[in-house]
Amino acid sequence: MRTPSADSPGSPARRATITDVARAAGVSIAVVSYAFNGRPGVSAATRERVLRIAAEYRWRPSAAARSMHTGPRAVGLVVSSDGGGTHATSFFDFVTATQNVLADHDYALLLQVVDSTEAAVATYQKWWAERRADVMIVTDVLTSDPRVEALRQLRVPAVVLGPPEVARGLTSVALDEAEAFARVANYLVGLGHREVAAVTASATLHRTKLRTDVLARALADVRGTVTHVETNAGAEEAAAATRRLLTGPRPPSFIVYDSDQMATAALDVARRLELEVPWDVSILAAGDSALCRLATPSITALPLPLPALGTAVGETVLALLDGGAAADRVVSFGGIAVRGSTGPRAR
Amino acid sequence: MRTPSADSPGSPARRATITDVARAAGVSIAVVSYAFNGRPGVSAATRERVLRIAAEYRWRPSAAARSMHTGPRAVGLVVSSDGGGTHATSFFDFVTATQNVLADHDYALLLQVVDSTEAAVATYQKWWAERRADVMIVTDVLTSDPRVEALRQLRVPAVVLGPPEVARGLTSVALDEAEAFARVANYLVGLGHREVAAVTASATLHRTKLRTDVLARALADVRGTVTHVETNAGAEEAAAATRRLLTGPRPPSFIVYDSDQMATAALDVARRLELEVPWDVSILAAGDSALCRLATPSITALPLPLPALGTAVGETVLALLDGGAAADRVVSFGGIAVRGSTGPRAR
Repeated sequence: MRTPSADSPGSPARRATITDVARAAGVSIAVVSYAFNGRPGVSAATRERVLRIAAEYRWRPSAAARSMHTGPRAVGLVVSSDGGGTHATSFFDFVTATQNVLADHDYALLLQVVDSTEAAVATYQKWWAERRADVMIVTDVLTSDPRVEALRQLRVPAVVLGPPEVARGLTSVALDEAEAFARVANYLVGLGHREVAAVTASATLHRTKLRTDVLARALADVRGTVTHVETNAGAEEAAAATRRLLTGPRPPSFIVYDSDQMATAALDVARRLELEVPWDVSILAAGDSALCRLATPSITALPLPLPALGTAVGETVLALLDGGAAADRVVSFGGIAVRGSTGPRAR
Repeated sequence: MRTPSADSPGSPARRATITDVARAAGVSIAVVSYAFNGRPGVSAATRERVLRIAAEYRWRPSAAARSMHTGPRAVGLVVSSDGGGTHATSFFDFVTATQNVLADHDYALLLQVVDSTEAAVATYQKWWAERRADVMIVTDVLTSDPRVEALRQLRVPAVVLGPPEVARGLTSVALDEAEAFARVANYLVGLGHREVAAVTASATLHRTKLRTDVLARALADVRGTVTHVETNAGAEEAAAATRRLLTGPRPPSFIVYDSDQMATAALDVARRLELEVPWDVSILAAGDSALCRLATPSITALPLPLPALGTAVGETVLALLDGGAAADRVVSFGGIAVRGSTGPRAR
């Protein structure tokens, strides 16, 4: 019998998990699951290999995973409508991406929109007590997040969209914000910019802290400054912040926005102020869309890797359903989509 | 004992419904429900009046409504990701609006994203067979919709977001597209426009047919024409359609778009073609947002009454849970938000 690889934390005799089988077979967790379910989309050869390796590991789908056909078969997600977090557009894309994995397993998303973090905590607690969802997802995680604490205390299988330091023992699936914003910082510093602004969503979001910290450190290294303006992530507040920045005593030469819609609104503010983008001010959007591609000038963007994130979340949910601990995952951004709204510092 | 009002289709002795009680008490269906549940937010006087009137009608919450605390307590919604229908942005706003009513009753939304109408039918059938949702919602209804037919055959309590002719016996909650587009037609005809284009989502959507039919009839009355261009409702296809229209042999002087994002993209195409909006071409968006308000020129829009629609859907779901037939509802648009992107025909 093969035993799980040595990098695992447990003893050599610990029970193998679906992750071990997937790694040994060189396939994704989803493919292992498909092979056992006899679902189409897995070749006969792959299926045979997965089953053989699973037998070697003495692994088989746990009761929890097999009971998926009698349980609630839902993944619970509570989102807050109070602004500052999830963007309506990327929310739909994220949900679509997770469903590419989960719908094949007959898992739906149980969704509730609430108006406060307290209401979100209460909803997760109720859903768990009433077995209305098998796994919970927490998005837009805060630097100190009562939802994470509540799910930890209840020992609920949960996926936190944030790094391990905020997931605090719950399973972490994180976008690599630090790497991506280091890349953004390198890019704008290389263009000569030293007075930078970041117009962001709520400062209580962990990703806001990560993004602004990385930018601030990189600019400090070149004796530059970053002005951080917190907004509700809406286009109106982004436009107002842009106007204040560009008409203030020390206007930035480069502004980073937390969404495509915020950057689109900012581009229009610059136009009304008769500033030329990128000659007078460069604009970059974290999050891409047709709005960025079609604007004049087109807007340089950091595309969110939503399909990869959705797949990682979906596979992690399946691993949790398998009854074991799921490995933490990190999803990398791709490169910056450099377009017409960014250029060298001219002033 | 009071009996239901004479406009009801049944015999005088038919069982009263929550709608009768709400009407007699002069409150919404939700308030009747709250009064019986003893929830906060209903004054003592209102609660007393509701209970008194309900007693007169010999109405009380049905077993179905009372069992909401043991059933799945979910409203099922399957949406298609294949484009041409629901817009990501308005989808989130619609969901938030329904939840304002339903979350108070501990109802969550069970959501699945699928890639075809056939998959949507299969998902509704499965959810109903497995009692995973109490009521189903159908959005983006097609002129001939297999989902409606399947839910009819299963006798599933369902709310169709479309008029009775497409709901076909299921409960209809419809935006008054005909009235709203008659208003749009009046507005643009009054400005002198005779060559009009409509750049829309999928032509298989019932609302696309309603909108273009109303526009075509109104323009025919003044010997004008409407060119209909069907797209996937994305900004890219809207931009490409706009370019073709404006560089073609008979460019329209007024173009109506099915979303804020489509109109925003179109505004940029006009700018690149060095056309002045609204002097060379007027642009109107069906659906409003900060993008329309912040653009230069700001974009004239027909705001979708999403809060009213969400409330109507939520109340209709509660009425269906009450065990009776729910009344069909029509939700009116407000007026056109006239801004800088529309003006008199100059050519």
